[in-house]
Amino acid sequence: MSNWQVDEDALESIVIGAAVLGTGGGGNPYVGRLRARKLLRAGHAIEVVALEDVPDDWSLCTAGGMGAPTIAVEKIAGGSETTDAVRALEDHVGQRIDAILPAEIGGGNSIEPMIVAANLGIPMVDADGMGRAFPTMPMITYFIYGISPFPCALADEKGNRIVYPQGVDDYWLERLARSSAVQMGGFVGCAVAYMSGADAKRTAIGGTLSRARALGDRVRLARAVRDEDVLDGILAATGGRTLFEGKIVDVERRSTDGFTRGQILLDGFDGDAGAQMRISFQNEYLVAWRDGEVVATVPDLICMVNREDGEPITVDRLRYGYRVAILGVPCSELLRTPEALEVVGPPAFGYELPFEPMEVVR
Amino acid sequence: MSNWQVDEDALESIVIGAAVLGTGGGGNPYVGRLRARKLLRAGHAIEVVALEDVPDDWSLCTAGGMGAPTIAVEKIAGGSETTDAVRALEDHVGQRIDAILPAEIGGGNSIEPMIVAANLGIPMVDADGMGRAFPTMPMITYFIYGISPFPCALADEKGNRIVYPQGVDDYWLERLARSSAVQMGGFVGCAVAYMSGADAKRTAIGGTLSRARALGDRVRLARAVRDEDVLDGILAATGGRTLFEGKIVDVERRSTDGFTRGQILLDGFDGDAGAQMRISFQNEYLVAWRDGEVVATVPDLICMVNREDGEPITVDRLRYGYRVAILGVPCSELLRTPEALEVVGPPAFGYELPFEPMEVVR
Repeated sequence: MSNWQVDEDALESIVIGAAVLGTGGGGNPYVGRLRARKLLRAGHAIEVVALEDVPDDWSLCTAGGMGAPTIAVEKIAGGSETTDAVRALEDHVGQRIDAILPAEIGGGNSIEPMIVAANLGIPMVDADGMGRAFPTMPMITYFIYGISPFPCALADEKGNRIVYPQGVDDYWLERLARSSAVQMGGFVGCAVAYMSGADAKRTAIGGTLSRARALGDRVRLARAVRDEDVLDGILAATGGRTLFEGKIVDVERRSTDGFTRGQILLDGFDGDAGAQMRISFQNEYLVAWRDGEVVATVPDLICMVNREDGEPITVDRLRYGYRVAILGVPCSELLRTPEALEVVGPPAFGYELPFEPMEVVR
Repeated sequence: MSNWQVDEDALESIVIGAAVLGTGGGGNPYVGRLRARKLLRAGHAIEVVALEDVPDDWSLCTAGGMGAPTIAVEKIAGGSETTDAVRALEDHVGQRIDAILPAEIGGGNSIEPMIVAANLGIPMVDADGMGRAFPTMPMITYFIYGISPFPCALADEKGNRIVYPQGVDDYWLERLARSSAVQMGGFVGCAVAYMSGADAKRTAIGGTLSRARALGDRVRLARAVRDEDVLDGILAATGGRTLFEGKIVDVERRSTDGFTRGQILLDGFDGDAGAQMRISFQNEYLVAWRDGEVVATVPDLICMVNREDGEPITVDRLRYGYRVAILGVPCSELLRTPEALEVVGPPAFGYELPFEPMEVVR
């Protein structure tokens, strides 16, 4: 499965798998599903190109939504924000983009590149810059491994466009773009990481869309086949393990500074009866403590799914009473290098904790 | 005096005159003076072109500082912010700017176009878009009379640049640019109102730099000649009248949302003994009440000068104890049309007051 077309079946699986791998962020899968469906009904088919098949001289950029997931699920999208952001970037560099390179994996931000690709009549690359979702722009392998964060373009549903042609660094870009996203209504389309095909092969995490699709396939299969446990399917597809099974008993969540931040508490059941888990988040789930002991941290993936049907629970959907499973999934090796851990390790989120790979904790 | 050169003598006068006409905003004249002096010591001479002599096919744009005056006087400028903003605009439109068209009259924003003109080796136009200073971008004759607010470019002293290639309108531009200016440190260089020479002749207020210079000449003359009252000189040069003479007894001032806002109270002396004046401001002095009665409002000019030497008091310099004269000066007719009053009249600043021209109040 090198180059393939996204059809309705693939979309259904990608939306689920990407929302699991989005670790709480990356956009709500329900909205992503609705938008994907609309895309298909309009007769669009999206071509997916394997990372290794991208010509070295192609011009690529990312395309996705930027803002707080809690806002994205309520703010009605115009539908062309992200496409407009790519057009603004194209206008600025004076060159057409040959293919869209996803920024992250998530229920919304895995769909957004498809919408843009369909609107512009170009393919999307089976890869991304996180292998999961992260809350801020600097936390992307493209920037970590030397792609310039400039130019960057934003667009909203009202018709406003902003271009950042040059600047100090990706942290300044994040700061300026985030504050503008807040002014523009809390969620905007963003195009950035303008690079060549050769650069993408060096800096991107390949095969992640296929991975999301395969994961979604397993979830859907388990739902269809009564005897298969949905968790087993997810673990088999991701190479992860179950960290906790429990009921959400407390949700502390606020939308602030263009992010959705907070923490949740879970009371364990079954094998975890009597234990408690706390998970903090900033758009994405960051750190999980079991009875006060750290059991998983960024950049490894902390995924939350409904215990019964494997439906991913993103931060905007968190609520008291959900019975969920918390899964730990090892992150890409590209996120575990010393230069990457400086940007995506626990201290980058304000936690003075060492990163210990999921495989060795406990 | 159609086309002229700005020499040290002219600069000294312009800084004073422009700060008087800046009605509290438009930048601190002390900082303007220092920067102007540095410019002259570097051997620069600035050519000023009369508005009527600008060729119709020239490309013009404004260049000035954007932010809160209280911040501008404390934040150390890099010196090239505003030039960088013009360069970003030039890069975006793919064309060189032939001359700088000032945005407003003020102690800083009358000097800033000179610095840019010197840096780029081009002239500046003897005109502006307010004939005074105003706090926000939409309050400019260029936009009021149909020049597009897009593109607009910002630059800071750190190396960040932002371009607004298109958007909803000038109010959205103001909102987005202001919030970015706050993120960039509260004061940035701004280039906007890209237009032709023909458009400038239709929308600009001409002769305002010459007017500031003549006003400054009168102040300096009065200081040099013991017998001449400095207020008489200012009134003669502006066609204004004295609204109040008194001592500042209360200053309420805060820097918020990228503006300097507040109000002051004055206790009258001499002919105004026993009376009190209150003046509200948002970067610029907006409304003056004498014992509760409105005596002057935007868009007419409410100017404050030191009673003894005519030194303009900008909002960043306000302090208890200053003995000042409050002068009312009629604004340009371009600010008194119905379409202009919608944008620069008292209601635009939140005051449900009619605009009554200075000449007819009392």
